[in-house]
Amino acid sequence: MEKTDVLIIGGSAGGIVAGITARRHYKDAKVTVIRKEKEGQELVPCGLPYIFGTVGAPEKNIMPDALLSGNNIDLIVDEATSIDREAKTVTTASAKSIGYEKLVLATGSAPIIIPIPGKDLENVFYAIKDVDYLNGLLKTLDGVKDVAIIGGGFIGLEFADEFKKRGLNVTIVELLPHCLQLVFDEDFCALAENKLRERGIDIKTNAQAAAVVGDKKVEGLRLTSGEELKVDLVFMGVGARPNTELGQKADLQMGETRAIWVDEYGRTSDKDIFALGDCAEKRSFFTKKPSALRLASIACTEARIVGANLFKLRRRNEGVIGSFATIIGDSGVGMAGLTETAAKAAGFDIVTSEVKTPDKHPGSIPGAKEFALKLVFEKATQQILGGQVSGGVTVGEAVNVLAALIQNRMTANQVATFQYGTHPFFTPSPIPYPIVNAADAALLKL
Amino acid sequence: MEKTDVLIIGGSAGGIVAGITARRHYKDAKVTVIRKEKEGQELVPCGLPYIFGTVGAPEKNIMPDALLSGNNIDLIVDEATSIDREAKTVTTASAKSIGYEKLVLATGSAPIIIPIPGKDLENVFYAIKDVDYLNGLLKTLDGVKDVAIIGGGFIGLEFADEFKKRGLNVTIVELLPHCLQLVFDEDFCALAENKLRERGIDIKTNAQAAAVVGDKKVEGLRLTSGEELKVDLVFMGVGARPNTELGQKADLQMGETRAIWVDEYGRTSDKDIFALGDCAEKRSFFTKKPSALRLASIACTEARIVGANLFKLRRRNEGVIGSFATIIGDSGVGMAGLTETAAKAAGFDIVTSEVKTPDKHPGSIPGAKEFALKLVFEKATQQILGGQVSGGVTVGEAVNVLAALIQNRMTANQVATFQYGTHPFFTPSPIPYPIVNAADAALLKL
Repeated sequence: MEKTDVLIIGGSAGGIVAGITARRHYKDAKVTVIRKEKEGQELVPCGLPYIFGTVGAPEKNIMPDALLSGNNIDLIVDEATSIDREAKTVTTASAKSIGYEKLVLATGSAPIIIPIPGKDLENVFYAIKDVDYLNGLLKTLDGVKDVAIIGGGFIGLEFADEFKKRGLNVTIVELLPHCLQLVFDEDFCALAENKLRERGIDIKTNAQAAAVVGDKKVEGLRLTSGEELKVDLVFMGVGARPNTELGQKADLQMGETRAIWVDEYGRTSDKDIFALGDCAEKRSFFTKKPSALRLASIACTEARIVGANLFKLRRRNEGVIGSFATIIGDSGVGMAGLTETAAKAAGFDIVTSEVKTPDKHPGSIPGAKEFALKLVFEKATQQILGGQVSGGVTVGEAVNVLAALIQNRMTANQVATFQYGTHPFFTPSPIPYPIVNAADAALLKL
Repeated sequence: MEKTDVLIIGGSAGGIVAGITARRHYKDAKVTVIRKEKEGQELVPCGLPYIFGTVGAPEKNIMPDALLSGNNIDLIVDEATSIDREAKTVTTASAKSIGYEKLVLATGSAPIIIPIPGKDLENVFYAIKDVDYLNGLLKTLDGVKDVAIIGGGFIGLEFADEFKKRGLNVTIVELLPHCLQLVFDEDFCALAENKLRERGIDIKTNAQAAAVVGDKKVEGLRLTSGEELKVDLVFMGVGARPNTELGQKADLQMGETRAIWVDEYGRTSDKDIFALGDCAEKRSFFTKKPSALRLASIACTEARIVGANLFKLRRRNEGVIGSFATIIGDSGVGMAGLTETAAKAAGFDIVTSEVKTPDKHPGSIPGAKEFALKLVFEKATQQILGGQVSGGVTVGEAVNVLAALIQNRMTANQVATFQYGTHPFFTPSPIPYPIVNAADAALLKL
């Protein structure tokens, strides 16, 4: 029987980072990753949408296996099918048995499939992380003109924008009154929707898919309103569910979000089995209640906690803040922490503060875009709870500035004197620098 | 006699923000700014270099006076010539006398003029914040081909790069072994120098200007080595000295850096007179020793402290961290906090950690550049002291992420689990996200 010190099931972002972190902190340990994806076929998860209008092929969106081999991490291409917790072994599809000291579940999630009629027709696609599948989608796109995207969240928007880059007619079908409504306040949803419409993307909100119509192939999408969209491809991007089968079969405790329960050190109900990323339950940084946020960056943060904690507890998970951004055309929108809506729903008494300014200075610098920012502060503690941003390509790091302020539980007064730097091409002017300016303005309401 | 509650001398970034902050925190106070620059002629300080190759005219680089009028701040265009501390009045060049309750000195700095022969010849220029002067430079540039820039710091590099955009032949003359050597470690100086050379800019380091050569106009620049550069314009960008004449005449205490001494609340030796920005002495966040860092962003931070403290102490200046970035072509370099060199010189026992990764992910996303990062941690406390960055346009906010981590005195272990977000177009991959990856690697040496 093969034996390893650290066995990681799953070779996507979280699995890789868990391996690298284990290697760093336990340099003599034998570290092994087992995954289904063949050598050279592990896709960059966040890059999936960008295959279709930007990079052009799944093969250009691959995580190099050198991330493993270069860190002296063994790779087994196989499928883990069961865990024997007492014997501390994992059995694989090819009937191999692998012994472990510490086991890490990084099995990720799978796209949710809405069980509507026609879901199995040809030309219905999902965000499935598989090179052959995505090449199939890529080839299909060459023969279609009209596409419906079910789901106006991040993944739906990103596929919509990329399909648009190919010249397709794209319609987003969103159940809620706004796209992105689960992650932004209405004002920022509206900003994002305006950008989508400027790009020529149709948006149908308050709209529910009833059936995919067609004989063999997709011919349309019928909504519950009775309206039928004439489309020849349907993409479902309505979220993901944690891959927990292995954990469930091994009787590991499940959490309230149907992900694998873990403690603040990343340990499951079995002290020798850790879980992280999309398959593991998260708790909110703010309320400590279960959170359904699933992001590659969160998986990597959890992997850095788990990788360091395997044989000795070194890092605690303080709960998920959430920091993310996306692009629409050449505009960016993003957020960190809680929105106004989420903060109120969680029971916080809050004030908000909004500012707008060009994202370069003077505004005559070519390419300057409007930078809009909304901050949320808790009244009781005056601490920053969240921020939403709209602008250009710098919003990705701008939300990380916010994440750093939030993580350190800075008060509005501290944020107002936060020592930022500025440059004409890179940031708004130092005078109305949005984060500090909004914080200073918020103080008057606190 | 005119009378105001808050009189601010100087209408650049610091003066404006002091006014806006005073207005916010003391809503009934009469706030007045007195400045020399006529209506509509206050230039954006950081935008100065970008007039020449990017925005095209000083008139496109103006701070709107609506920043004052829109905040109910009075503007007096005049020159303050003396302060009577006992009578609490300021006298102006037009013999006006203005009474104040609280006085704020935001008089800025002026370019240092190296006293070499030929410094007064036609076609020797400086970074002088004056519309007519800059229009004179702009006009002159149309008639020249070869330019020497004395000084390889930020301002010299920025003018060099903009002059290059006009198609001029540009040579930088730097006294030290490297450009930017006062703000970066050698490895990052070299990165910046390579980018300058790729842009076709000549660099002469270890080179000292001896004399500007010419009859009436510039014909060359002679170095102390004897070498003579044939140029028809010389730009001196060797730093700035604080404008302290008013303060000195009023017998305010001066600091070790020849700027006006202030306490941690921004008060000068006269409790009713505050000073901020380039004219005020700064102390290091790390050592509390005097610092010669002068940036518009620092002036604005100090202005937010002073503006809030005028009638009641509310905010303390914890000392200057320093966070800044610049552009060379379409590449960015920046830093926050202490370099390895500066940390060692200050007596810290430190470790450094360097990483490199594409600034987008996968690296096949168009426009991806190498993102290089170097972090400095103190051994005794494991706290982050500084970071240097090279990449694209996102470095401006990336140094602000660093500034936030530094300001919160986060340890390497905390930085390693900092909750960042990522996006293919905006940031490096979540797997090697540089800040956390470098921190995790640094832990092995701490």
